[in-house]
Amino acid sequence: MELAKIGATPKGGVRRLALSELDGQARRLLIEWCRQAGCSITIDGIGNVFARRAGQDDTLPPVITGSHIDTQPSGGKFDGNFGVLAGLEVLRTLNDRRVRTRAPLEVAVWTNEEGSRFAPVMMGSGVFIGEFALQDVLQRQDIDGISVGAALAQIGFAGPAPIGARKIAAYFEAHIEQGPVLEDSAKVIGVVTGALGLRWYDVIVTGQDAHAGPTPMRLRKDALLAAARMNIEVNAIAQRFQPNGRGTVGFMQVAPNSRNVVPGTAKFSVDLRHADDTQLEAMEQDMRAAFARIAQEAGLSLAIERVSSYPACRFDAACVAAVRRAASELDLSHMDIVSGAGHDAIYLARVAPTSMIFVPCEGGISHNEIENAKAEDLAAGANVLLHVMLARAGVVSE
Amino acid sequence: MELAKIGATPKGGVRRLALSELDGQARRLLIEWCRQAGCSITIDGIGNVFARRAGQDDTLPPVITGSHIDTQPSGGKFDGNFGVLAGLEVLRTLNDRRVRTRAPLEVAVWTNEEGSRFAPVMMGSGVFIGEFALQDVLQRQDIDGISVGAALAQIGFAGPAPIGARKIAAYFEAHIEQGPVLEDSAKVIGVVTGALGLRWYDVIVTGQDAHAGPTPMRLRKDALLAAARMNIEVNAIAQRFQPNGRGTVGFMQVAPNSRNVVPGTAKFSVDLRHADDTQLEAMEQDMRAAFARIAQEAGLSLAIERVSSYPACRFDAACVAAVRRAASELDLSHMDIVSGAGHDAIYLARVAPTSMIFVPCEGGISHNEIENAKAEDLAAGANVLLHVMLARAGVVSE
Repeated sequence: MELAKIGATPKGGVRRLALSELDGQARRLLIEWCRQAGCSITIDGIGNVFARRAGQDDTLPPVITGSHIDTQPSGGKFDGNFGVLAGLEVLRTLNDRRVRTRAPLEVAVWTNEEGSRFAPVMMGSGVFIGEFALQDVLQRQDIDGISVGAALAQIGFAGPAPIGARKIAAYFEAHIEQGPVLEDSAKVIGVVTGALGLRWYDVIVTGQDAHAGPTPMRLRKDALLAAARMNIEVNAIAQRFQPNGRGTVGFMQVAPNSRNVVPGTAKFSVDLRHADDTQLEAMEQDMRAAFARIAQEAGLSLAIERVSSYPACRFDAACVAAVRRAASELDLSHMDIVSGAGHDAIYLARVAPTSMIFVPCEGGISHNEIENAKAEDLAAGANVLLHVMLARAGVVSE
Repeated sequence: MELAKIGATPKGGVRRLALSELDGQARRLLIEWCRQAGCSITIDGIGNVFARRAGQDDTLPPVITGSHIDTQPSGGKFDGNFGVLAGLEVLRTLNDRRVRTRAPLEVAVWTNEEGSRFAPVMMGSGVFIGEFALQDVLQRQDIDGISVGAALAQIGFAGPAPIGARKIAAYFEAHIEQGPVLEDSAKVIGVVTGALGLRWYDVIVTGQDAHAGPTPMRLRKDALLAAARMNIEVNAIAQRFQPNGRGTVGFMQVAPNSRNVVPGTAKFSVDLRHADDTQLEAMEQDMRAAFARIAQEAGLSLAIERVSSYPACRFDAACVAAVRRAASELDLSHMDIVSGAGHDAIYLARVAPTSMIFVPCEGGISHNEIENAKAEDLAAGANVLLHVMLARAGVVSE
């Protein structure tokens, strides 16, 4: 819990925004620990840190684990940090047991996964795999006008290593689930088979403001009432596309938003997710048809704009099987699970065989200062990580 | 349209807040016109103005008409002003035709009907009938800390006449409908039989914030989704209580109101109205039962607070019949209608036989700078007002 002291909040959480002075402190502490564990350190141009434990054949591509140590503004101690520290714990354990691997092992710290200070999210891993151009990203600014490039230089993490030059044998990331499924199912290990595809929409329904008293029900054009019907449709669509469909109206803004005026305008967001892109497309089509019908029946105008879209991700079958096997061999209760949130591993999966290991978090609560996880579950996750990395890298001698 | 120049807005509306300097100017202009029409002027302690045309027997209680000349911050030219000017037009017409009435006639200008600058609404008529205590109301302050008493003194309208000392033979108020019913029904005159009772509620639904991605549908406690179901119930209840039921969710506030977070909290308003208090009570009971069921099914907590309640108002049968008869005799298309909005007449009805005369407004739009009404409809309304006042006061000679 030393790392969680850097940026600790009174409520027990952590506020350590990407590339802030606190992020720099945390990075330096982590590098010190890695060096003490015998690692060599490489830093690339977007500030991703790679701590390397040499393999017997150091020319082989490394088996990499990692995550991030930046946090949400009101973040917790476990999101990201657990995956990095679990990787360090793997290396320390191998040192203690004097285990040598055929391929090298690395622990990666990806820059700015949260995206709270600088957009986009998953910046370091996205640059690493070529999703974003380094030169573009370095110019992104926070709300104070400080660029990513300037912030990196300020904390001393604008590294010399070229972007994406690393070959990777496999990538494994341990993470708290950030959802309630494992706890609800009383399982310790989530074998992550992939990640949900995601589509975001902005919707505007326009009717007519009218006095709530003098305007009879039949002569109204109530935009909020139509938005309410649409919200219920979003929920019904997600229910139809189980087990992996999600549908959420998280944002709602009403105008004029006065208690005695029939609302003329409602703006809201829709978040649709599914593990299968074909199904996700079908959800979108169902939504568009339902919204058009509701708007037409009420005589309202409707505008739907798709503002973001990420395809579903399927992790490497062999890596997923390795996680499942390790959990079984360690006699840990486990279940297959699909990640609903974004993770660096989702980008890494585009360039290397990848999988993730989830452990439960209390009440499914994350991105919150009260985020919590049990020590034994975290240890179990780290143990699974140890086993899959060893299996992939090959053990030379014990 | 001289009066509408005082506080005229670029979009063709009027901004003339109660007891402002502009309100003072408008009052002085109106008093000048009334004096030119031969009236004596009385001003009471809350600034209500009574312009009196003497009757043959001036000891008889007067037949009073009137309304207000304060406006909403972005108000129109017709709301209130029409009723006052229609009253003045009645007096001028009687002068032109040399008609003398047995009882005196008065045109009243009620202070601060809108309530935009000082709460409560319908302040002048409310004080007049004893609903509010004068001393309390004089201390009410606007957002700049200026009291009603100070504002009255500033514009010279803290009058000497005692409150509520006037006996009233009958009260008639002409007003634009502020709703779409007359226009939709192609009628010129609304024979106003009463006003809807009104109940306002603040509702808070509390669930649990959760990540929209990792949280499966079955493990959510989505407060906005429940609020959407409640909005649909409010609408269904109002539909069941036709013709005079109204149900509106006009205000909605969601927390945390972020597109990828299942909302943990939804606060919203409910506005229920009905012409019959027993029915209104039944609507409330139906609403409470439906909300409790929805909250329970979703595992959410629910708080409902009733924050305002006004009983339904039934206007005097003889006065209503007089309006209907006048419209018929003048061969004006007409229909019975219930006021959905508040008016000074609703307070006056507690102390005197009362009714109202509605005329259509364009698109049912009011409290808006584009508020509009046809000249011929306004003339028709004033003509009905002339007839009912004459009928009630008694014509002595023509």
